[in-house]
Amino acid sequence: MAMPADGAINPEWRLYARSASDDKAGVMAILSAFDALRAAGVTPALNIKFVFEGEEEAGSPHLGEIIDQHKDLLAAEAWIICDGPVHQSGRKQVVFGVRGDVNVDVTVYGAKRPLHSGHYGNWAPNPAMLLARLLASMKDDAGRVTIAGWYDGVESLGEAEQRAIAEAPAYDDELRAQLGLGRTEGNGKSLLELINQPSLNINGIGSGDVGALARNVIPTTASAVLDLRLVKGNDYRRQVQRLIEHIRGQGFQVIDHDPTDAERKQYPLIAKVTARAGGYNAERTRMDLPISVAVIAAVQSTSTQPIVKLPTAGGSLPLSIISERLKTVTITVPIVNYDNNQHAENENLRLQNLWDGIETLAAVMSMKPNP
Amino acid sequence: MAMPADGAINPEWRLYARSASDDKAGVMAILSAFDALRAAGVTPALNIKFVFEGEEEAGSPHLGEIIDQHKDLLAAEAWIICDGPVHQSGRKQVVFGVRGDVNVDVTVYGAKRPLHSGHYGNWAPNPAMLLARLLASMKDDAGRVTIAGWYDGVESLGEAEQRAIAEAPAYDDELRAQLGLGRTEGNGKSLLELINQPSLNINGIGSGDVGALARNVIPTTASAVLDLRLVKGNDYRRQVQRLIEHIRGQGFQVIDHDPTDAERKQYPLIAKVTARAGGYNAERTRMDLPISVAVIAAVQSTSTQPIVKLPTAGGSLPLSIISERLKTVTITVPIVNYDNNQHAENENLRLQNLWDGIETLAAVMSMKPNP
Repeated sequence: MAMPADGAINPEWRLYARSASDDKAGVMAILSAFDALRAAGVTPALNIKFVFEGEEEAGSPHLGEIIDQHKDLLAAEAWIICDGPVHQSGRKQVVFGVRGDVNVDVTVYGAKRPLHSGHYGNWAPNPAMLLARLLASMKDDAGRVTIAGWYDGVESLGEAEQRAIAEAPAYDDELRAQLGLGRTEGNGKSLLELINQPSLNINGIGSGDVGALARNVIPTTASAVLDLRLVKGNDYRRQVQRLIEHIRGQGFQVIDHDPTDAERKQYPLIAKVTARAGGYNAERTRMDLPISVAVIAAVQSTSTQPIVKLPTAGGSLPLSIISERLKTVTITVPIVNYDNNQHAENENLRLQNLWDGIETLAAVMSMKPNP
Repeated sequence: MAMPADGAINPEWRLYARSASDDKAGVMAILSAFDALRAAGVTPALNIKFVFEGEEEAGSPHLGEIIDQHKDLLAAEAWIICDGPVHQSGRKQVVFGVRGDVNVDVTVYGAKRPLHSGHYGNWAPNPAMLLARLLASMKDDAGRVTIAGWYDGVESLGEAEQRAIAEAPAYDDELRAQLGLGRTEGNGKSLLELINQPSLNINGIGSGDVGALARNVIPTTASAVLDLRLVKGNDYRRQVQRLIEHIRGQGFQVIDHDPTDAERKQYPLIAKVTARAGGYNAERTRMDLPISVAVIAAVQSTSTQPIVKLPTAGGSLPLSIISERLKTVTITVPIVNYDNNQHAENENLRLQNLWDGIETLAAVMSMKPNP
């Protein structure tokens, strides 16, 4: 897009940068909103505290410790979080929960050294095939997780939450077209319904090489990184345990290290399964609390379109670390465009979203606590 | 291993280098053997021609053309090929055939852009899971290929060939121990039996990232490189076609390019499937031909242990290009150690194999044509 002759910045332009949307945009919008309120002489009716957490993408390993050390300083009626995207339709959004999250690494093993795929192929087991069979056993054709107990204990949604989902704009067809998806999972359920379920995603798989680097070998190992998302009622440790039990049920000896020679001899199938540090549970704030109603009103005041109210986002933040330790609630006010390639190549921020976000956050900072 | 005080070269030392065994060793052993015969004043009873082919690992795309242009120059009673390893027991080996080979690239598709695994996980299809399910459908638990017709038309072995397999040293248990394999495929069949069957190997799989680079995304594509090995009676084009029919049978629209938006909309499941150039069929020379008997005798003359005679190697060479165009036969006399990490990291050559190989090839060059 060419720079206009008058030098104006086109609001449809995008800033491309690592973390442009997630979460540099949030930090800059918060600071800009506060600066604007001060410049306009607006005195907030609330006592506002700012917390910027720099380790969230790494699972916030120190957030709990910091909160414990500064409980008085950090006490609050509510924590307003700025992270994640607005609705795909472009409407502003208030989100009352997040899914929990835990990552698990899985590695399966072939021979101790790479083998020529001709000399040993169809005799020596191929770890890529072992991994394919193992992963395929975890979901059915419609994308439902087939691991025993996966959906047990999921808390059902309240009346306000169910109504909010029903009122949200129907956007799945548009999304499917934009993303080039000829089908989606879940037997016809909507995206908003499905993110209220626990999930199992494959973040990546790797074994040997593909493309120009591929050679005729039987690789020695095959690995996958799994991303388990959790909803209210799930416990991330229990969910990992269910995964491990499932892998055992497929005939694998599950260990937490590369196998020794003795283990290789003893067990025909071995999987190394390790949960990454930083797992945490889902969090959800009731949408009918006074503070919830106040935040909805503040965000709505900045938009002529009805805003979207979501019981939970599909994504995750370690909000339970905050709410449990400080006996408070969390409400998320996202600002960035949904098509921001978050966590991937070409992450970007649409400029109009940054400007709208500053306005949204200024409205939240200057809201009345009990409308 | 430390250099001995007397400066002698230990024959158990290994040369580590790309292609050290496959196939720099063969080239150097041939040249050294011929130099040694000349230095010793030995005049071969046969007219010897040398051909060094530099494109074999790329499927020998020009070998047929070169042969066609130089048929008179290249005419021969037999072509003796130096490639591949001696038997795992260390015994010398003469090999009368090779498997055919063709590589196939398979790519399946998710959304057009990478998606956050929380916001879209369990709604947007994950290509790594689609690939896992597709690959898992291609083999049963015992490693038998489940693609319809895969084993059709395989020619059975003659009497001499069956006897040679029965006489070969039983080495599978030792191999399993060395390779750290708690199980092998094929329901108890031996390695030598199994390489007389067509195979399907996964050379590599890739989607997203694993290890430290993994992020919480739904990747856009997932790819595998397959290696199909063929035996006498298979045709590589027909085998690729069976693979494609199988992928269709799993619900995929099979195309040979990245999908267009229209194709993405029309087909819920799309696989790009392309056979790499350079595929070829298997080749096998009868073990009871006079030239076969002569080569066996020559190689046996250099060893106190019974040599191993194999109807076919597990690996592949484009020998049918030679035998069909020149109306000749091919016999392979391998020299390198079997544990050479051929085609992989740390490829190596055991020095004693190089020295034994020079002796073996000198014996073949000086053999009598009709013993």
